[in-house]
Amino acid sequence: MSDQRHDDRYQQRGVSAGKAEVHAAIAHQDQGLFPGAFCKIVPDHLGGDPAQCLLMHADGAGTKSSLAYLVWRETGDASVWAGIAQDSLVMNLDDCACVGALGPYLISNTIGRNAKRIPGEVIAGIVAGYQRLCDRLTALGLPCIMTGGETADVGDLVRTLIVDSTITARLPRAQVIDAARMAPGDAIVGFSATGQAAWEDAPNHGMGSNGLTSARHELLGADYRARYAETYAPEVKPELVYCGRFRVSDPLPGDPAVTVGKAILSPTRTYLPLIRDLVQAIGPADLHGLIHCSGGGQSKIVKFGRPGNRYVKDAPFPVPPLFAALKEGTGQTWAEMYAVYNMGWRLEAVVPPARIEACLAAARAARIEARVVGRVESTGGAGREVVVATPDGPAVYR
Amino acid sequence: MSDQRHDDRYQQRGVSAGKAEVHAAIAHQDQGLFPGAFCKIVPDHLGGDPAQCLLMHADGAGTKSSLAYLVWRETGDASVWAGIAQDSLVMNLDDCACVGALGPYLISNTIGRNAKRIPGEVIAGIVAGYQRLCDRLTALGLPCIMTGGETADVGDLVRTLIVDSTITARLPRAQVIDAARMAPGDAIVGFSATGQAAWEDAPNHGMGSNGLTSARHELLGADYRARYAETYAPEVKPELVYCGRFRVSDPLPGDPAVTVGKAILSPTRTYLPLIRDLVQAIGPADLHGLIHCSGGGQSKIVKFGRPGNRYVKDAPFPVPPLFAALKEGTGQTWAEMYAVYNMGWRLEAVVPPARIEACLAAARAARIEARVVGRVESTGGAGREVVVATPDGPAVYR
Repeated sequence: MSDQRHDDRYQQRGVSAGKAEVHAAIAHQDQGLFPGAFCKIVPDHLGGDPAQCLLMHADGAGTKSSLAYLVWRETGDASVWAGIAQDSLVMNLDDCACVGALGPYLISNTIGRNAKRIPGEVIAGIVAGYQRLCDRLTALGLPCIMTGGETADVGDLVRTLIVDSTITARLPRAQVIDAARMAPGDAIVGFSATGQAAWEDAPNHGMGSNGLTSARHELLGADYRARYAETYAPEVKPELVYCGRFRVSDPLPGDPAVTVGKAILSPTRTYLPLIRDLVQAIGPADLHGLIHCSGGGQSKIVKFGRPGNRYVKDAPFPVPPLFAALKEGTGQTWAEMYAVYNMGWRLEAVVPPARIEACLAAARAARIEARVVGRVESTGGAGREVVVATPDGPAVYR
Repeated sequence: MSDQRHDDRYQQRGVSAGKAEVHAAIAHQDQGLFPGAFCKIVPDHLGGDPAQCLLMHADGAGTKSSLAYLVWRETGDASVWAGIAQDSLVMNLDDCACVGALGPYLISNTIGRNAKRIPGEVIAGIVAGYQRLCDRLTALGLPCIMTGGETADVGDLVRTLIVDSTITARLPRAQVIDAARMAPGDAIVGFSATGQAAWEDAPNHGMGSNGLTSARHELLGADYRARYAETYAPEVKPELVYCGRFRVSDPLPGDPAVTVGKAILSPTRTYLPLIRDLVQAIGPADLHGLIHCSGGGQSKIVKFGRPGNRYVKDAPFPVPPLFAALKEGTGQTWAEMYAVYNMGWRLEAVVPPARIEACLAAARAARIEARVVGRVESTGGAGREVVVATPDGPAVYR
């Protein structure tokens, strides 16, 4: 199965990992104070302090809420909605933390629902999920403040439910982690997306909120296409809709203690407490980059760092069961898998080799597995590339 | 046609003007520093200055984007997308200004699209629309700073396009306009939603971004139900979908120089420059309240002010042609119309009578028609109510 075939399948479903069109639409916008940083950073327009800066960042749970709806309808498990709140919030918080913003975080959300499908108790579950995660992080010294939000009944626009979050934070310019500094000689330390971190109540199966359209349709099957027409775009060819072999209640191959539905729905882990400890232990000067492996998966890092950087990841984590099932179920190549999913680690720290041990120590304290997944080399040219060791051999992303 | 019948029609379309379920879901959230203000206001968590405060506010264009899509497809007019950017941004900016926040405004957006229906040039048109309005307001001394945003391909969630905005602003606590101070004896000055303000390029027909689901389906008809299934919820009964008598290209009754489609799509007017002038002329002490007549239309004010306030609006603006056509086309009662649409004025200033002339003078300078639409009385009880003079007699909202 070729890369081309899967690119086609993505586009036929109306999604892309690369978002070329979107990037073209915003190409002429101002890039902010640190054009190479993981998030856009602007001057302190609110306080007017030249030593400070601001970021305002938006992201959401994406089509994971479509899966949550399906699982909720199939199983009656309303806890999925707190998970969607966490997905929407963490996709955002962890981006912000990657530039060194450690709070207070001002948080708002925009929720659009089809009231014919989504009753008030679902909205209440999402609102409670936001508050619970905010309270937990605040108690851990990472203040999260809900400032409000907007919930709109827009059934003419939204099939089920869309949950987006926006965060505002302020930090001293001197503490910005500017990923533009990642340079040859640096080590790349990866932090596992699975297991149970010190601040978590249950083990996580590693899914973030990226690649969910593909994961849902390629893994799940049964009669969902006929029974849940409200969970997918009718413009997509039927043979690409829920064309997998699992029901949400089937045990996950390789980890039968969890169902396929719950594994894919694993709420996006926040690395915030770990990132705070990394910043404190290493300091922004030697923390050359923090990369949230979200959209683009393990190729994400290629957008950042010095021109001519080659990111060699030749010691990846073992593939967690969920991603192995996705690989098997979807028929995607390993190269495709690593460009969509995190494949086991959703956070990378890029540091001088002398700082590796500090990274590993912080991870041990957080009860998150960590390892040196690779290093930064030079291509000798001006472009950047990523080389990931996969079972099919090296996958290269530019 | 009874109120009950129209409440039913709203609910059958999955929308409500009152959002009771949503308010129940957030009832236990902290109400901020000024619980009676038009927007939630929190302490200066970013700067830590006890004399300052912050707000972070979210809103969007709602189902107006569904109409923009239909008009764009029918006419090829791509300028509708800049209008949607303005709708999404102004619904938000004008809320923020009603508590006295006059910028700088940090602005972010979340755009969800069905890539099968919405090509990249539409996203580019929306992004350009945001930037153009920000540039214009910045040039007028109301700094608007785009901080970024998120555009997601989520065809499994979104039928066409959803466009939401979030704004962060900071202001001195002493300058907050706290609508809790509105009291018997105050005058209510209304500011027209129609005409051409000093900062506008063309006349506005008065529509905000509220009531669009009802307006679209009750006014428009022809073969849109069959041809544009992507613009409405399939769960709604067919007889409630595009059951009106107009095509988007038909002339608007009472104002044949404009089409029905363009009139409904009139981009939401911003009152920002006027509000800034009102604040400067009157000061926050005597500006007891500024009300953005958005969701709830002319009943919006009932949520604010002292217990026992009765807002008597016995001198409303003449009904603009668009709202007259909506009344005629929808068969709604006048009481329903005033509870959904602004009916001619989307901004109210509530001031001591001695400040009326300052309000009217600011409006003249802005080339916006203004009038004393009514006054604040006392009910003698604890509840609040609004009484609006309509052609059917007084409509009461509690």
